Amino acid sequence: MSKIETMSVNAIRVLSADAIQKAKSGHPGLPLGCASAAYELWANHMNHNPADPNWANRDRFILSGGHGSMLLYSLLHLFGYGDLSKEDIMNFRQLGSLTPGHPEYGHTVGIEATTGPLGAGMAMAVGMAAAETHLAEVFNKEEYPVVDHYTFVLGGDGCMMEGISSEAFSLAGTLGLSKLIVLYDSNKISIEGSTDIAFTENVQKRMEAFGFQTITVEDGNDLEAIGRAIEEAKEDTEHPSFITIKTQIGFGCPAKQGKASAHGEPLGEENVLAMKENLGWPSMEPFYVPDEVYEHYAHLAEEKAETEAAWNVMFAAYCEEYPEMEALWNAYHDENAGEKAIEACADFWSKPEKADATRNISGKILNKIRTCMPNLIGGSADLAPSNKTNMSDMGDFSRENRGGRNLHFGVRELAMTAIGNGMMLHGGLRVFIATFFVFSDYTKPMARLSSLMGVPLTYVFTHDSIGVGEDGPTHEPIEQMAMLRAMPNFHVFRPCDETETECAWYSALTSKKTPTALVLTRQNLTPMEGSSREALKGGYVIDDCEGTPDLIFIASGSEVELAVNAKKLLADRKVRVVSMPCMDLFEEQSAEYKESVLPKSVRKRVAVEALSDFGWGRYVGLDGACVTMTGFGASGPANQLFEHFGFTADHVAEVARSL
Amino acid sequence: MSKIETMSVNAIRVLSADAIQKAKSGHPGLPLGCASAAYELWANHMNHNPADPNWANRDRFILSGGHGSMLLYSLLHLFGYGDLSKEDIMNFRQLGSLTPGHPEYGHTVGIEATTGPLGAGMAMAVGMAAAETHLAEVFNKEEYPVVDHYTFVLGGDGCMMEGISSEAFSLAGTLGLSKLIVLYDSNKISIEGSTDIAFTENVQKRMEAFGFQTITVEDGNDLEAIGRAIEEAKEDTEHPSFITIKTQIGFGCPAKQGKASAHGEPLGEENVLAMKENLGWPSMEPFYVPDEVYEHYAHLAEEKAETEAAWNVMFAAYCEEYPEMEALWNAYHDENAGEKAIEACADFWSKPEKADATRNISGKILNKIRTCMPNLIGGSADLAPSNKTNMSDMGDFSRENRGGRNLHFGVRELAMTAIGNGMMLHGGLRVFIATFFVFSDYTKPMARLSSLMGVPLTYVFTHDSIGVGEDGPTHEPIEQMAMLRAMPNFHVFRPCDETETECAWYSALTSKKTPTALVLTRQNLTPMEGSSREALKGGYVIDDCEGTPDLIFIASGSEVELAVNAKKLLADRKVRVVSMPCMDLFEEQSAEYKESVLPKSVRKRVAVEALSDFGWGRYVGLDGACVTMTGFGASGPANQLFEHFGFTADHVAEVARSL
Repeated sequence: MSKIETMSVNAIRVLSADAIQKAKSGHPGLPLGCASAAYELWANHMNHNPADPNWANRDRFILSGGHGSMLLYSLLHLFGYGDLSKEDIMNFRQLGSLTPGHPEYGHTVGIEATTGPLGAGMAMAVGMAAAETHLAEVFNKEEYPVVDHYTFVLGGDGCMMEGISSEAFSLAGTLGLSKLIVLYDSNKISIEGSTDIAFTENVQKRMEAFGFQTITVEDGNDLEAIGRAIEEAKEDTEHPSFITIKTQIGFGCPAKQGKASAHGEPLGEENVLAMKENLGWPSMEPFYVPDEVYEHYAHLAEEKAETEAAWNVMFAAYCEEYPEMEALWNAYHDENAGEKAIEACADFWSKPEKADATRNISGKILNKIRTCMPNLIGGSADLAPSNKTNMSDMGDFSRENRGGRNLHFGVRELAMTAIGNGMMLHGGLRVFIATFFVFSDYTKPMARLSSLMGVPLTYVFTHDSIGVGEDGPTHEPIEQMAMLRAMPNFHVFRPCDETETECAWYSALTSKKTPTALVLTRQNLTPMEGSSREALKGGYVIDDCEGTPDLIFIASGSEVELAVNAKKLLADRKVRVVSMPCMDLFEEQSAEYKESVLPKSVRKRVAVEALSDFGWGRYVGLDGACVTMTGFGASGPANQLFEHFGFTADHVAEVARSL
Repeated sequence: MSKIETMSVNAIRVLSADAIQKAKSGHPGLPLGCASAAYELWANHMNHNPADPNWANRDRFILSGGHGSMLLYSLLHLFGYGDLSKEDIMNFRQLGSLTPGHPEYGHTVGIEATTGPLGAGMAMAVGMAAAETHLAEVFNKEEYPVVDHYTFVLGGDGCMMEGISSEAFSLAGTLGLSKLIVLYDSNKISIEGSTDIAFTENVQKRMEAFGFQTITVEDGNDLEAIGRAIEEAKEDTEHPSFITIKTQIGFGCPAKQGKASAHGEPLGEENVLAMKENLGWPSMEPFYVPDEVYEHYAHLAEEKAETEAAWNVMFAAYCEEYPEMEALWNAYHDENAGEKAIEACADFWSKPEKADATRNISGKILNKIRTCMPNLIGGSADLAPSNKTNMSDMGDFSRENRGGRNLHFGVRELAMTAIGNGMMLHGGLRVFIATFFVFSDYTKPMARLSSLMGVPLTYVFTHDSIGVGEDGPTHEPIEQMAMLRAMPNFHVFRPCDETETECAWYSALTSKKTPTALVLTRQNLTPMEGSSREALKGGYVIDDCEGTPDLIFIASGSEVELAVNAKKLLADRKVRVVSMPCMDLFEEQSAEYKESVLPKSVRKRVAVEALSDFGWGRYVGLDGACVTMTGFGASGPANQLFEHFGFTADHVAEVARSL
């Protein structure tokens, strides 16, 4: 390790320790322990261009241990990414700064994914690597490997303990994603103490079992060994690689290194000084970085820029030789791809005639749109035949067929969601995932990341209520609707028929920054006379009365027809039926529009939905009522369950009369 | 395999196929494929007593692949469990029957756990095995192994794909739970087709990496080999065991065996008949089981009863020799243990004097109660120092110290929850688990099982809002409160001070059938003058005005003080402040009580909670307002965040005035 390399590595430690000390908050353990590995990777093995952070063919780097954000901010600052100034570093963890506590995608230039929930980055990296192989298959031509990059991810013991990493890595091994390279920061320390208290497994052996090449670096500060390991990882073109790097948490700080206390709190002012002394740092002044270090990084950045420049030359030649591929490339990377595909898909908007399950309708729509939207890719957590998410003739994405557009995630809902996020973060693809609605529970932690990052991933959730029937309460969603509706920046659509299902897909595929869930029935639903594209407003009058109503039914999905039927039993009243397929979108409408649908003066309101009543109070108020589920479901034929739980026109009408 | 054994095994297949056929719904693949293994286990290796399904020292059996419920119902029926009659079998999957689609704990005698969500049973089994070792350490005396049983769990590829099984098995290996024996139904088939499409990992190698002994049975119908494997598993007293049993899904049905279509739909009438013919079944009549088969099972059941009889003799002698242990045993198994412990804990109810974080207060309470309640055991997903869940001097539960009462789950929230459920299902223990509130997302699928099963597991969720501060939006809960409030049979408590935190713990520890979550602050809260044990009603008037109020603030947790302060700014109004630590409990109160707290005539209502507004409409109605979070949080010092997001007395008062 040359002197300038040593100083360049230690600059990461110094900036991290100082920033955390100034913020009086943060996690120095990881940045100090992994500074060498990260430096070696970014300086000598990773293709990236600080001057163009969005270069399509850059290698991706995800910090799965997001708490170690100062590692990333230090690297971004030192390499001259965006405008991440020293002042930004000094504002670490301050309100409105570019350097929040955990890395946030879309907030700071150069951050590939929001991380913090452990293991999430591991699984998103699997998604990015999968996206790379698919796009490479689609776009690369002889002598023009326009998509050809690695995905690197760095995480620690916590990431490896979380089940999501097992799920994702098992799939990565199955798929042979050889350009995925995992750096495992093995420091044997967890928050509660030595990892021995909860984690004595043989991690490498597990990764071998998943089908990874495993490599070990004994000394996490040995740049040469780290470099060799990365190159060895690149050489394996059959298996993803897992590099165990034995590190010392908080390395460099004599009083803290190797201890749990280095993980998540500032080192303390004295310890920061002691660290600088120990590292032979030339100044005790906070945030001091010698000019030669900046110069060294600037030089590296220039070299990096040349890699992109070479790619740009190749890409220009590619476009010249293959103008149709250039057009396809632009189509894949067009943020309006959804609108254009739907426009190009002549029969997207249908004239529904017969009753059908919305899951079947969704399957039909998917198969209509699939040829108009070539960058649409997705699959299910082993429930495609039930979710109706298979795209005919589009092939199965696999080790042998990188061009396949049907993904098989296995029974791994959480990793599926993160992988879906990762594929979309990569760029170029529009992704959907699928499972039973009740198992949206498993997707929740990663669905939250879709929302937080603003990744418009599409969720196909079928079997949307007690309509599940015989499978019983473990498979019947009740509170899942409320769970998803409560989440910021997440649209949940529960369509009542074919037209509304089309609206749901339209909304999902054209959304720019908001993920969308489609909540679909197993059982048949009748096409509703009043249903229309007004559904895109989230809620609308689907069946009205003359003049001002004295009663309003508000329903979604399978219960819209029920409400319309209940209305027929109330011929002596002026009843309006509002279809509310997407509360979230309705909330985004103007106050005028909302008032026109739900006039404040009408207080007799009944919500009808075969799910939890939680959240309906917003619309029924203190004077209304809910015909909803009050507990878990039961096992039995679906029609009997609906009757048993009060979802009959008679009962709905009776509740309305009682107001 | 003797003739009667063959017939006894095939009786399981016949009953399963007939029941599923009659119901026109169900999953024959597993019961047919695993009939031999399950028969061998239940007949010849498992200590259980059909005449006393609740015998404390029975071996536990969990069907993790809960969709194969007919396997379990067939066994329970044939062994003569409870009153599971042939008619019950014939009513499979019918509304109100004892044989719902998936096995339901508390609904059908002999069901140890509700299963269906794949992998859950695997993790609950780990919990049961952990409970066994702990209770054995507490109770066993020389020559009196009163707690000495195995935990068997049967699951398939789906269970092994789910991350929860990796989480749980990694911990089981670390803890060396050698009396856990996993039977892996390896049939190479998933719903979407061959497991090769998503699951080519070396499962045995993964399990070895986790620290399991692995054994393989090449032929899933070879009773002798299965028996040998189970005995080999029992002999290993250092490691849990993992027996791979190579089976054929839908075995016995010529047209279906080995195919994905055998998994989840009836075989079809003709195929049922073809199966019976293929198996040489003596009658084609549906549900026919020869008398000699019933006699054989009855004989086995008699033998099984003797095992318990012998244990009863030993237990009686144990009680005589160790009367203090008998008393302790009764205390552990007393469903009122919580009430009694709190009564015995002289200083449980404190007189709060100074501001403190509710997480600290919770830690204090836990440490007060720990000596009065010896069967209280629990821990955190590697956040104990932050969750304040460590019980001093109670030791760490580990391979070396089975008596330890502090559990270290590692960073594995989902498995932690299932393991907590499993420990409580075992009987004898009261369990709490802990993590950050935002990570309740990860616990959700298993929290749902707590609720569905009626297991009063306690959840300690700290860092309950933007009060998290610098860690930022990935760590700041927003919608988690709504998610949990929306779940049936789940109590969520967000106390505003020490008194309410005591109520929350009281409610949690005395709950019989409802899990309880405590949602606690990182930051200090002031003791409120009006707070009282009325909090046990979920919501109550904490600060009132003279006469009927013209405005009501409703708040929880850290926002109660804020509401009280806002009230002070509205001296010209008659303002009531309602503290609502637990909406779920408030909803359970009488209509009169609820009206007394929130008179329907008072329409000016403002909910104040630094979380999602979702669900507050129930109380604020169409005329009220919410001071809540409308999006995700941010990274910064907590006090700045509260101000930034409008949680100031001025802003709350302003919103109130605007009504």
